[in-house]
This record gives sequence, C-alpha cells and structure tokens, in this order.
Amino acid sequence: MTETPHPLYAKHADTLAKALTAITERGYWSAYPESPSPRVYGETAAAEGEAAFRSYLDADFPLDQPGTRDRVATEASPFGLPLGVRYPHADPDELMAAATAALPAWRDAGPQTRLGVCLEILARLHANVFELANAVHATSGQAFVMAFQAGGAHALDRALEALAYAYAEMTRHPGTAEWEKPAGKGDPLRMTKTFHVVPRGVALVVGCNTFPTWNSYPGLFASLATGNPVVVKPHPRAVLPLAITVRYAREVLAEAGFDPNLVLLAAEAPDEGLASTLALRSEVRIVDFTGSTEYGDWLEANARQAVVYTEKAGVNAIVVDSTDDFAGMCRNIGFSLTLYSGQMCTTPQNILVPADGISTDQGHKSFDEVAAGIAGSVAKLTGDPARAVEFTGAIVNEGVLARLDEVAGLGEVVLASRAIEHPTYEQAVVRTPTIVKLGADAAQTYGREWFGPISFVIATDSTDHSLRIFRDTVGERGALTAAVYAADEKVLDAAEAAAVDAGVHLSCNLTGGVFVNQSAAFSDFHASGANPAANAALTDGAYVASRFRIVQSRRHTA
Amino acid sequence: MTETPHPLYAKHADTLAKALTAITERGYWSAYPESPSPRVYGETAAAEGEAAFRSYLDADFPLDQPGTRDRVATEASPFGLPLGVRYPHADPDELMAAATAALPAWRDAGPQTRLGVCLEILARLHANVFELANAVHATSGQAFVMAFQAGGAHALDRALEALAYAYAEMTRHPGTAEWEKPAGKGDPLRMTKTFHVVPRGVALVVGCNTFPTWNSYPGLFASLATGNPVVVKPHPRAVLPLAITVRYAREVLAEAGFDPNLVLLAAEAPDEGLASTLALRSEVRIVDFTGSTEYGDWLEANARQAVVYTEKAGVNAIVVDSTDDFAGMCRNIGFSLTLYSGQMCTTPQNILVPADGISTDQGHKSFDEVAAGIAGSVAKLTGDPARAVEFTGAIVNEGVLARLDEVAGLGEVVLASRAIEHPTYEQAVVRTPTIVKLGADAAQTYGREWFGPISFVIATDSTDHSLRIFRDTVGERGALTAAVYAADEKVLDAAEAAAVDAGVHLSCNLTGGVFVNQSAAFSDFHASGANPAANAALTDGAYVASRFRIVQSRRHTA
Repeated sequence: MTETPHPLYAKHADTLAKALTAITERGYWSAYPESPSPRVYGETAAAEGEAAFRSYLDADFPLDQPGTRDRVATEASPFGLPLGVRYPHADPDELMAAATAALPAWRDAGPQTRLGVCLEILARLHANVFELANAVHATSGQAFVMAFQAGGAHALDRALEALAYAYAEMTRHPGTAEWEKPAGKGDPLRMTKTFHVVPRGVALVVGCNTFPTWNSYPGLFASLATGNPVVVKPHPRAVLPLAITVRYAREVLAEAGFDPNLVLLAAEAPDEGLASTLALRSEVRIVDFTGSTEYGDWLEANARQAVVYTEKAGVNAIVVDSTDDFAGMCRNIGFSLTLYSGQMCTTPQNILVPADGISTDQGHKSFDEVAAGIAGSVAKLTGDPARAVEFTGAIVNEGVLARLDEVAGLGEVVLASRAIEHPTYEQAVVRTPTIVKLGADAAQTYGREWFGPISFVIATDSTDHSLRIFRDTVGERGALTAAVYAADEKVLDAAEAAAVDAGVHLSCNLTGGVFVNQSAAFSDFHASGANPAANAALTDGAYVASRFRIVQSRRHTA
Repeated sequence: MTETPHPLYAKHADTLAKALTAITERGYWSAYPESPSPRVYGETAAAEGEAAFRSYLDADFPLDQPGTRDRVATEASPFGLPLGVRYPHADPDELMAAATAALPAWRDAGPQTRLGVCLEILARLHANVFELANAVHATSGQAFVMAFQAGGAHALDRALEALAYAYAEMTRHPGTAEWEKPAGKGDPLRMTKTFHVVPRGVALVVGCNTFPTWNSYPGLFASLATGNPVVVKPHPRAVLPLAITVRYAREVLAEAGFDPNLVLLAAEAPDEGLASTLALRSEVRIVDFTGSTEYGDWLEANARQAVVYTEKAGVNAIVVDSTDDFAGMCRNIGFSLTLYSGQMCTTPQNILVPADGISTDQGHKSFDEVAAGIAGSVAKLTGDPARAVEFTGAIVNEGVLARLDEVAGLGEVVLASRAIEHPTYEQAVVRTPTIVKLGADAAQTYGREWFGPISFVIATDSTDHSLRIFRDTVGERGALTAAVYAADEKVLDAAEAAAVDAGVHLSCNLTGGVFVNQSAAFSDFHASGANPAANAALTDGAYVASRFRIVQSRRHTA
C-alpha cells in the first residue's frame, strides 16, 4: 500500500497546482482554451477531429470491454445527421464484476497516482477535443462552437475543477502522522498512524442528452480520482461523446498499468431501463445523475445503498425592477433565451416584470415595452436563419416541440416560435424561442418547468410581488439560475436576500458578455444543492467529500 | 449581510488556529486538560461543580425556552442516585417555529462570528466541566474520572475538532472574488462574486444514554457553526448533560446578541417517540443520531428531507495471531473489556484466536491459555470492588443484564460476570465482564452485537480464517474498532488490508497505555462511514461539508 506516485503525477503536477489555487481563489482561470480557432489548436486539428468523428459512423464503436452481449445503436441526431454507431451492449453482471475487480489496485495506488492518471485522461481528451466536439454537436443539437466550448473545453475545465477538489479533500490530512502524548513523568505514548483513502465502491454516472460531457465529467472524474471504478450510462440519444470519453480513459488507464475496467460504458437498448437496473445494484455506491426531476427523485428514493447526486429541473427566474441600460438588458436576456434554443438547464423561464412598467435609462417603459424589448432582441438574433442556427442549434427531442405547441394557447404570444431551415443540415429540427405573456395568477403554468425555447413575461403587482413569486416558485420547484435587474442598491440587496433564502445563485444587472445561463468553472458554482433543482453543487467540497472514506491504522512507533 | 466578526472571534482566534493546524497534521493535540486534578482545575472546582450539579436535583431545570407545555422527569441513574430533574416538555410546533425564526440572523452573521460564539460556548462549558462531568457520571453510569474525561474534556475536544472542520470548510473559498476574463482586444469581462454560506435548516441531534455529550457534541457544533439552529433531543435517561449544554449555549448566544432559540432542548415524556416526530418535520434538514442499528436505519430510510448522520451498532473484533508481549497484550485487552463494563460502542466483542494457539515471547500459548490470560487480566482489574468500580462504572440498563443472563448459556464461560457492591452508591448496578468461548461455527451468536460486558474468544482454524471471519462479520454488521496482535509484519499487513477492505479502523499490537476502545480527538477518526456501523466519521470533511451550501451572487465589477 505504499504510494510511489506514477510519473504521470509529476507530468501534470503544475496543472494540478494551478487548479488547486484556482479553487481556493475562485477568480478567473481556465486550463483548456475555449476558442476552436486554428491559431489556438493548429491548422489541421478541426479537420482531423471531424475525420475521427466520421470514422465512428455506421460502424461498431471500438471499445474492448467485458461482457458484450450484442450491439446497440440508439442515436438520432437533432440535425438529422446519420450516425448509426453501434455500441457494445454489456451484461450488467459482468460490468459490475469487472468494475469491482479493478478497484483494489486503483485504491492502493493512492491519490497522487490517481490524479496523474486522471489528468492524463483529460490531456488525451483535450488532444481529441474536436472529435469530442463533433460528437456533442451531432448528438445534442448544440451549434458547433457551443459544442466545442460547453461540450469540450468547459467540460474539461469542470472535470479538472472536480479533480482539484477531490485531490484537496483526499490530501487535507497527511498519509501518516506521528502522535506523541505526554504521560506525566513517564515516556510519552507514541503511535504512528496511517490514513488510507478508501473509495465507496462502484460509481454510476447517468448522462443526459443535452450536455453529455459537461454534466457527466465532474461526477465521473470526482469518483474516479477518489478510487471508485466508474460505469458510464449515457443517454441513448447521446452515447458517442461518452463512448469517446470511455475509450480514451481506458486507453490511458491501460497505458499507465491499470485495469481499463475502471471506466466502463453501459450503453442501453431502447426502453431497457438500464440506469435503474444499475442504480439498484449493491456494488453501486455512488450515482451521479442529470435529467428529469421525476427520475432524479426516484433515484434518491430508491438507490439507498448509494450516495446520489442529482441535477434536476427547475424554474429559473429573472426579476426585472429597473435598469440603467435597457438596450443592454434586452440584448443580454434575449441572448440567454436564444442560446441552444433555451434547452439549457440554466435558461431563464420566468421573467417577472411589474404590470405598471419599470424605469430605465430610456425613461419609463411599460410592461409591454419590456416584453417587446426582450422579444425584439430574440427576433434580431434569429432573423437570419444562417446566423440564427449558430445560436439556437437544433431541437433535441419531440417533447420540446409538443410543449411549443401547447404553450401557444396559454397566454398572449409576444413572440412566436418559428421553424427555421438549417443551411447545412436539411433534416435539422430548428425552432426559435417563443415568449408568452402571463398574469401573476397563472402559477399553474409558470410554476413548472417548460424545458425548451419557452419563456414567460409575467405581470406582477410590484417588484416585492415579483420577489415573492420568485421565492415561492424556486422554493417549490427549484432553480439553477436567477437574475435581477435593478438600478437601486436596495432592490439588489432585497433580491440577493431572496436568492439566499431560496438557495439559488443570482446574477445582477447582466448587460454585457456574461450571461445568466453560463457559469465559469473554477469561479461560479453550478447549482447550489439548496433548492429542489439539485441536491449538490458542481463543484465544491461537499460534492467530493463523501465519495471516499478514511480508514486508519495505528501502531506503536518503532 | 456584511460580516464584521463579533469580538468573540478575536478572543478565540488562537484556539481556532491551533485546532485548524491540528486537523491538518492529525498528530497529538488537546485544548481541554483531561485530568480532573486540583493542580489543573484549582482547589475548588470539583466541589463547586458537584454543588452546581446537586442544585439541579429534584427541581425544575432552569431553561427559559418557548413552547413549554409541562415538565418531564425521566432519568434513572445507573448508580441509583436520586435525580428528579424536571425538564421543560415543549410543543414540537413551537420548537420548530422558534428555531426557524432564529436562523436568518445567525446565517447572516457569517462564519467568523459563528465560530467566535461557538468557541465561547465551549469555553463556558469548560468553565463548568465538573458540573457537566457529574451529570454524565450520574446518568451514564460512567465512573467519575471517565465521565470527566470522555464526557467533559474529550467531548469538548471533539466539539472543537468539529468546529475546526466546519470553519475550514466554510472558508476554503473567499467570501468574495474578483473574476476577470480576457476578451480578445476588448476590455476584459469583470465580475465581482459573493459566496454566501447558507445553512440547510433546523438540525436535530438525538443523544444516547452512554455518551450523552461525547457523541452529541460533534454534530451539535458542526451544525450550529455552519448556521443551522439545533434542537437537542436527549436520551430520556441522560437528559441532564445535554440540558446543561443547552443552558450554557443559550446563555452565550443571548449574551452575544443572538436568539437563544438557536439551541433548544427537546426533552420527551416516556414512550413519546419525540425523535421520530421531530426527525420527520419538514423544517429539519440535518439529523445526527447515535444509538441502535434498528433506529438509525429507520432514520436513514424515513427522514428523507434531511441529511442523516448515524452511528449504530457493530461487532468489534480483535485478531490474535502472535505477540512478543503476551502479558502486555492480555493486560491491554483486559482493560478494554473492563472499561465502563464494555458499554462503549468501541469495546471489542469478538477475539479471534487460532484453535491451536499462538506463539508468544513466553513460548507457545494454547487457545485456552490465551483466553485464560485475557480473563486473568480482567479478573485482576475487577478483583477489588472498590477499585473495580473506578473502571467498570455501573450498568446502564436492564437490557445489558438480560444479555448477561442469556449469554452464559451459549458457550463455555471462561470468566463469569459478577455483581459487585459499589462502595459509595448502595443502589448501583455493577457487573464485571464475562468472557465466553465459542467455536468459529457459532456465527449466529458472535455475528451480532452483544452490547455490554460480553466478549467471545472464538477458536478459528488459523489467522487466515480469523481474518475471513473478521471481514465477513464487519462487512455484514459493521464495526467501530478492530485490533490485531501479530509479531510478523506480513500478518500485520494482511490485517491492515482486511481492515481497509472492511472499512474499519485498526489498532496494531496495543500493549501499553493506548487502548483500542479509545480514540484521540484531532488524530484518530472515530467510525469510518465505510461499514454498516456508521454512515459517517467523527470528524472529517465529509462530516461537515453537507451541513451548508454556497449560494453565490455576481455583479459587474464597479
């Protein structure tokens, strides 16, 4: 059980040190450049990545893992891209047996070696980030640049952030300590103590369709770094990004002399319900999930042998009280609604505006003028189809389309959703955002999540009333994000107090290049764990601390 | 929400700094002297503390808290001491309302102020440690010196340890951070971020009869320091130590300008089941419990709105392979079995010895000779009643007596339990330990906990066999402690590997003044959370990290 760190630890020690500093300071830092520009990544990277992506299509995915019964191909690209990738379909018993067998050597390798290997996996994924971005783009419906950023660079940053927390937590105590207790006139009592980091068991990561990498990487790498083998169960419509991830992880593990079965893919057949099967296995001691409230709640209630981290649905809100930059406010909100057609768990849904309007740098604006200002911003961003799709991407599933149909009849439509033809992908399903006016009494509508490009501008009696609705809806249904626009410090403070009470992160007066639906790794926390939308934050101490235990031994000092 | 630390923070900053260093190094450190000697505490402290204790007897306990319906007196001292203390019996609705109302100001006071106040509470308790020790002694049945140490000084050390972890966790990020992201040729994006520590809600502490303070303090202070109001539900037979704790906590809180309802006593009437009533309240978001496996499992399964920390029962084991200090081994094990008549959650129960004996510094010792050696050590410690009771204390409840009766018929009795007359307390119920020989096939007996002065010496085929039984029983039923005696490093390593697999802390070759059933605050972890005996350790990062959340706000930098 002696830990001689693997050379990969030294190779990546500088990156780790910087990440450890970043999580302590929580200012700006990033390890993986977010620009896909050839000036950053080289002239050939984009083409090579795309070619690597294409090589997977209509073929058996190259993954040599145990227990493969047959192959499954379940993906359907929102862009209509033909995929046809056939993944190994594994026997759960064999997956569990393989993961369990891989644990002891990985546990005994110690924190430094595990970090070295995990950081090498991130380096390998980064070296293939265009391949990964193409896979995220094709399966999630994100526009390419967003897929590169959110699904590539930012996902790697979040993974690194989780690794830094995991390392800090595992090493906050020394591996051994000398204990010397005075004993009156006699010799002191002397004991040598050894503290072992012991993983919980097998970790299960259940991926989602919209952010297959960004939402999965923190849990995956936090569990792996703390010694737990990880079984990755991707969403059936977004398998490729995680299959690529598992492939490179296994490659690095094997090269470093470890059992590649420390990371396994659990692709499923349609309607197989594999996540539930795996989540209830006694070997599974950690579950990370992103997706619906219904299923997240089910996991929390039923996977009782495991510690379960969930990110679920919520009703994100913006409280509009006043602004000294009306144009900037409308632009900023409009962009947030348009990005990825509102299919982010962080997209604002409920925009709470006093019915008698607000004061702005352009004078008083009526409720309708505020609604029109935001709608105009969205309309402008989506006016030109070729430009629009670079923001909106494509619609991820039929449910979104059904909600778009349904919502049109529930209030006065300020901005109608439009179908857009994608200039490149003929089969792509693209929809622009809709904005619907509601009264404050329509809580049965705005009080639940309408996932997709659907937002409500809600007429309230006053900003106080808006804050009450904000507290109530977030308290009941949760939220991942909140924003406030107010020119008055007192209103900002009241909004901040409401956000603290409701347990949701708040963005104030965003009018420039920072958007409420975007969080920056190493600085912004994503989700809080303090409201029903999630039971944990990405990424903090609580997110990693329970993924392992300390088991100590003590002996008289020789 | 600005945090100007209360002056109490500066007053105790040095103690906090030392505790923070101690939890990082995990060597020897203690803040509260464990010797009740007048040379340490002054000539009058003992008498004053006893007088203070006596002033509570046959009287209404002085606690001015809301919702008192009537009074309850439920204690019965194992020493037969008449107590008759009448505690306020509160309405749960009013307790919850009072605790909830106290939360916001305490939350907004910030980590430093909360730590200052919590450390002042510890100082106040320490100033009254003899009073506390008398209360622990009278209600738990611990001998006085043990009550002073485990129930006073060591409990305060564990509380301070929990406070240090809580503070470290709350302050691992700054309260505010500046974020400046380069934006090509334009001005960088600049945001100022504020990170609020937000408590989960009301915390419930459910105390036990045997260690009313030691087992309750870590959860109580970890929750309070992280901003949660705490409702303390003592065991009906050990109310006084926690009533005194609540009294001084409320006194300090009020003096510091906070709502004393941040700490409330929830004494219960017989058979009221108040813990269950409180644990299921929606306001309760944290539960700390020490006690039976059955009830701990119930809490984990049912108090789903809360994060639940449990310490339950286990089957602690000693693997005896060989020793180069046979006399020291027998003395050390014998003392562990005798202390507090085996009524510690850490007392060894199963002593696994090869049937064909062991090699020692005194030559080969047969299985019977090993059993006789340990029995002889216990017999020597308990031979003189006046001396014996200073180790054994008294028997905490009828269940222990019933088990003593039952076990005598289950195997060959190596050492019979004896009733002893207490030289001071005529009514005291005192029993010396029994040791019973069992075969390895008697797992239906030794495979479950026999709480009390009951241990088994179990004949195994070999040390390998002993280690298999050790893994199986600890894996199935859990354990809080384990020990091994072996002269061979390879056997020690094998035992350490088994302990890591089973997730239990291991003591090796204890022959001197350190005992397997004692753990030192700031150095030894108590429980691991890695086996069924407990779902958390006292005290580590995981124990505090989920007691609060971070809620952030961000604004463009002015």
